[in-house]
Amino acid sequence: MATAPVLPTDLTRDAALALDAADPLGAFIDEFQLPRGVVYLNGNSLGPSPKAAIARVTEAAAEEWSTGLVTSWNRAGWFQLPYRLGDRIAGLIGAEAGEVVMTDSTSLNLFRIVAAALAMRPDRRVIVMEGSNFPTDNYVIQGLIETLGRGHVIRFAEKNEIASAIGPDVAAVVLTQVHYKSSHILDMAAITAQAHAVGALAVWDLCHSAGAIPVDLNGCNVDFAVGCTYKYLNGGPGSPAFQFAAKRHHEAMTQPLTGWWGHGAPFAFERDYAPASGIGRMLTGTQPILSMVAAEAGLDIAERAGVGAAREKSRALGKLFQDLVEARLGDAGFTLGGPAQTDDRGGHIALEHVNGYPIMKALISRGVIGDFRAPTTMRFGFSPLYLRYADIWDAVDILVATMETGLWRDPAFAAVEAVT
Amino acid sequence: MATAPVLPTDLTRDAALALDAADPLGAFIDEFQLPRGVVYLNGNSLGPSPKAAIARVTEAAAEEWSTGLVTSWNRAGWFQLPYRLGDRIAGLIGAEAGEVVMTDSTSLNLFRIVAAALAMRPDRRVIVMEGSNFPTDNYVIQGLIETLGRGHVIRFAEKNEIASAIGPDVAAVVLTQVHYKSSHILDMAAITAQAHAVGALAVWDLCHSAGAIPVDLNGCNVDFAVGCTYKYLNGGPGSPAFQFAAKRHHEAMTQPLTGWWGHGAPFAFERDYAPASGIGRMLTGTQPILSMVAAEAGLDIAERAGVGAAREKSRALGKLFQDLVEARLGDAGFTLGGPAQTDDRGGHIALEHVNGYPIMKALISRGVIGDFRAPTTMRFGFSPLYLRYADIWDAVDILVATMETGLWRDPAFAAVEAVT
Repeated sequence: MATAPVLPTDLTRDAALALDAADPLGAFIDEFQLPRGVVYLNGNSLGPSPKAAIARVTEAAAEEWSTGLVTSWNRAGWFQLPYRLGDRIAGLIGAEAGEVVMTDSTSLNLFRIVAAALAMRPDRRVIVMEGSNFPTDNYVIQGLIETLGRGHVIRFAEKNEIASAIGPDVAAVVLTQVHYKSSHILDMAAITAQAHAVGALAVWDLCHSAGAIPVDLNGCNVDFAVGCTYKYLNGGPGSPAFQFAAKRHHEAMTQPLTGWWGHGAPFAFERDYAPASGIGRMLTGTQPILSMVAAEAGLDIAERAGVGAAREKSRALGKLFQDLVEARLGDAGFTLGGPAQTDDRGGHIALEHVNGYPIMKALISRGVIGDFRAPTTMRFGFSPLYLRYADIWDAVDILVATMETGLWRDPAFAAVEAVT
Repeated sequence: MATAPVLPTDLTRDAALALDAADPLGAFIDEFQLPRGVVYLNGNSLGPSPKAAIARVTEAAAEEWSTGLVTSWNRAGWFQLPYRLGDRIAGLIGAEAGEVVMTDSTSLNLFRIVAAALAMRPDRRVIVMEGSNFPTDNYVIQGLIETLGRGHVIRFAEKNEIASAIGPDVAAVVLTQVHYKSSHILDMAAITAQAHAVGALAVWDLCHSAGAIPVDLNGCNVDFAVGCTYKYLNGGPGSPAFQFAAKRHHEAMTQPLTGWWGHGAPFAFERDYAPASGIGRMLTGTQPILSMVAAEAGLDIAERAGVGAAREKSRALGKLFQDLVEARLGDAGFTLGGPAQTDDRGGHIALEHVNGYPIMKALISRGVIGDFRAPTTMRFGFSPLYLRYADIWDAVDILVATMETGLWRDPAFAAVEAVT
């Protein structure tokens, strides 16, 4: 590592700058409020703030709340936000208007959605899940089946075992399309078809898909889905999540978290619950409006950029990172923790290194922000709307320097603390 | 109504101004961003914005999110907000630190809390509720018992029937302390003792209590409670709600909505759920941070004002309104829709009038903002932190004018639309 490697022509910083100059998405970076001196490769965890989001949340607080007061529920359209923003999300994930609502957290939405699915398959007891998935999905389903007390079981299967796990005893297949750690993409169309072939329902978690890769829920005939808006959709910290239910299920669909926002006549104040028609019955209680309005700016950017163009650039950014690491750090102990082909992975790359934790801490100290997942995974996210090719080149350059100088060995980076 | 009534001396506007001049809470109005020309009597629905809330949410978006990015989960304390703000709420409702978390909506919190209570009384099947309560509480419990599928039933009882409804078959008594419509206060201490006497658990909804009247959960030996922060605590539209569980229940407590924020080691990413110790196990998923940080300003004001002083002023404001309506509108068809004594009611007053809907619309058009609940209830809230005695006088004066001029008969006020 002592001498600079000879890079292929297309791996020079000038080549990266040339790619930026020709980038049709290049202007979007100006729509984000990013700190100076930072290469932000953690948009797969929390997307950065659109400038319009800051302006919008301030406006909502200082005008709609302060001046409009309670009348803003109607006049500023607050009460309709779960539907209106849901419709915008629908357009990004291959769903129709009226099939998506924005509300609550992914975990709560998964509880509702899977409960609805299980109620539609009352004679089946098996739920197929990927055990290595981001674990809140497991926790939610574990809590749900214990609450139901009807003998449901989770059949855990890893990526290549999923097809054989889907048998005629399966009520629902509940999978995350893009793996939070390895970044591998499951085949939504094929697995959904396999589920349907045995009479099971397909539920997809889109947390690492929405805004990152093209998703075609209706094209894949998906039954239900959930996802978050604070990663690639840049909705803000903890911005409300979403639920999708295919229209064909709306009439029969029931869910346990029945509250006034899901009632057919919420302002009639009737004593007994009667569900709204359509996707509205998947709502429960009052929504956090300031967080919700802030999220619209990110949806707006995603729409204008187009998921297809964003995906192409994200693949190119990730490929550049991968090639640069291979060319410049080929003997530094890094290995890929996920698919080598861009077709097979989502918006981030997992790099494994036995010293991943202090290396990531050292990188962060130098302005390259990724994150770490124990025991050895460094995650680098390639959100295409605010990253330049030159940023990727610079990030790897800093990684090279971190390894060459041994910066990561500094005791300051050894102390273990939670890296979110 | 054609001639002005002769008012008792203490019901003049000058008397109201004198009360304002001597009001120890009078300065708090300067901490709120209120529109000019409005008397806001709907803080029992949505409290107005503290100036500090606007500044805080803008700071969180423009600094913590934009500059701190993902590191703000730790460095800005986002991940700890449910606990830290929960502890502040605890101080306002007679709970200890570590007994309250701020999270999600009241409806979702009630689902978790009542599920936890029912699991502690596995041999009992009856839940006592007030059927006229704000109905989301009913809806939530209806959904919960249908999901459990174990034969639970709700025994609906109105105020005076509650004591006799609490028998040895009761698992939990689930009541709202201050009625959303009539404003009547249920006796928390007595009813909790009645529940305990038969071995039942007591669950209280504090939506119309928190910040409005002194609440002493531990003094009353309450088991569980929920409540919202966007009414008298001025947390902002849909600001997250809270859950209380008495410490004695923490170890045995289980709940259905198990997610990663309630896990004992959320960043260990373990496959299987294991609950956090303490109140943290009542959390589920990621919280809407912008809405949450905005709510702290209102908690801060409530702490500094003191619930006792706030309650005394609220009672005085309500009594002034009541006396003025009686003196000046005694023959205009208004009747009280709730308790006549301030001891027996919360922070708002229900006025019944057969033409309540157009009268309220006319009032709103003149800057007096209350709300309406079908068929005949006009609600007027007396939040003490930003209302002056003179505001109450002016509001009634406008109500008098509305009735005398027949303004409310204007067809513009007849069209029915939802008044939230």
